[in-house]
Amino acid sequence: MAPAEKSSPGPPQAVQVLEACLVTLPGVGKVTARRLAYHLLKVEESQARALAEAILQARREIRPCRICGNLAATDPCWICSDPERDRTCLCVVEDPRDLLALEKARVYRGLYHVLPGRLSPLQGFGPDSLEIPRLLKRLEKGEVKEVILANNPDQEGEATARLLAEALAGKGVRVTRLARGMPAGSAIEQVQPPILADAFEGRRPLG
Amino acid sequence: MAPAEKSSPGPPQAVQVLEACLVTLPGVGKVTARRLAYHLLKVEESQARALAEAILQARREIRPCRICGNLAATDPCWICSDPERDRTCLCVVEDPRDLLALEKARVYRGLYHVLPGRLSPLQGFGPDSLEIPRLLKRLEKGEVKEVILANNPDQEGEATARLLAEALAGKGVRVTRLARGMPAGSAIEQVQPPILADAFEGRRPLG
Repeated sequence: MAPAEKSSPGPPQAVQVLEACLVTLPGVGKVTARRLAYHLLKVEESQARALAEAILQARREIRPCRICGNLAATDPCWICSDPERDRTCLCVVEDPRDLLALEKARVYRGLYHVLPGRLSPLQGFGPDSLEIPRLLKRLEKGEVKEVILANNPDQEGEATARLLAEALAGKGVRVTRLARGMPAGSAIEQVQPPILADAFEGRRPLG
Repeated sequence: MAPAEKSSPGPPQAVQVLEACLVTLPGVGKVTARRLAYHLLKVEESQARALAEAILQARREIRPCRICGNLAATDPCWICSDPERDRTCLCVVEDPRDLLALEKARVYRGLYHVLPGRLSPLQGFGPDSLEIPRLLKRLEKGEVKEVILANNPDQEGEATARLLAEALAGKGVRVTRLARGMPAGSAIEQVQPPILADAFEGRRPLG
């Protein structure tokens, strides 16, 4: 038997620790983690320090809004505490980033309800994880007239929306779902079949 | 003229700062920066804190080796201070990650010389940035007999290797370049034309 080889040294311990932290980020594999780690070692120290401080600062300052679940520096968040928002309408989103996208589009002036996530049984995110009672509690005052389910138009989003719709049935609110169809500005010739199927199924009478 | 619209609020200030730091990382655009920022806000606080601490710790501990330029927790680095390494041979690489890859392959037992980067005029990395005098100084003791140019087999790597070869000419050392050719285990049928061209050009007599 050949003598045991010396173990491969790999990067220094502190770099290994950094890589192990980076690899937990979404979309970051081992190769990217190493690239990011060495990037952070090569840039000006102030730049690396700024990132570390920004992480700590954001964690210190940002908290979930106790009303809607949005992540914000204030509690209630800037939307829940805005007296100009329409309090009769709740738009349910799966993520604070979805709220930001809707706000950027300036198409909605009601309140939001930010779910803790989307149904994803394989990742251990089941119906209980949606914290539906927290949503139902917001309807108790009777102020809300409509709940718009703005889950993503994909399989997990649809399953989440269906579950919410069941829970909201008979609660005295109108439950709606964002329309699916052809994206504005698209060309029918290039639109994918599932999108065209949605467009036919959701067709509306003119005039 | 329409009245000025209220500016889009976007994420809270602390999140904006975090996103601005994340977007400076290689391969991270605005969308990824936002995804990473909100991921860091959603995970356990200890996990986000661990990343911040790992960045700071790595910056505190890791320094360039004064001899070879490798990034390490000790100076000289673990390779330059290893008495078992062959001191007659220098392998020139463009990045500490290349050194790690070569070490992992266990194909080389000499010393390294880690360049500050590779020629890339568009990114302001010209010949002076290579710090060639630092490499030449390592040859002055006369111990080194061979310099292996392990630059990447691409355009920038080749240009870098050519420049180094010119600077090393007449310095009394053998200058070599890692072989280009078909990757072991590949199938000729599937190998790309530039690789086949290298393989023909670098063909060697048998026996």
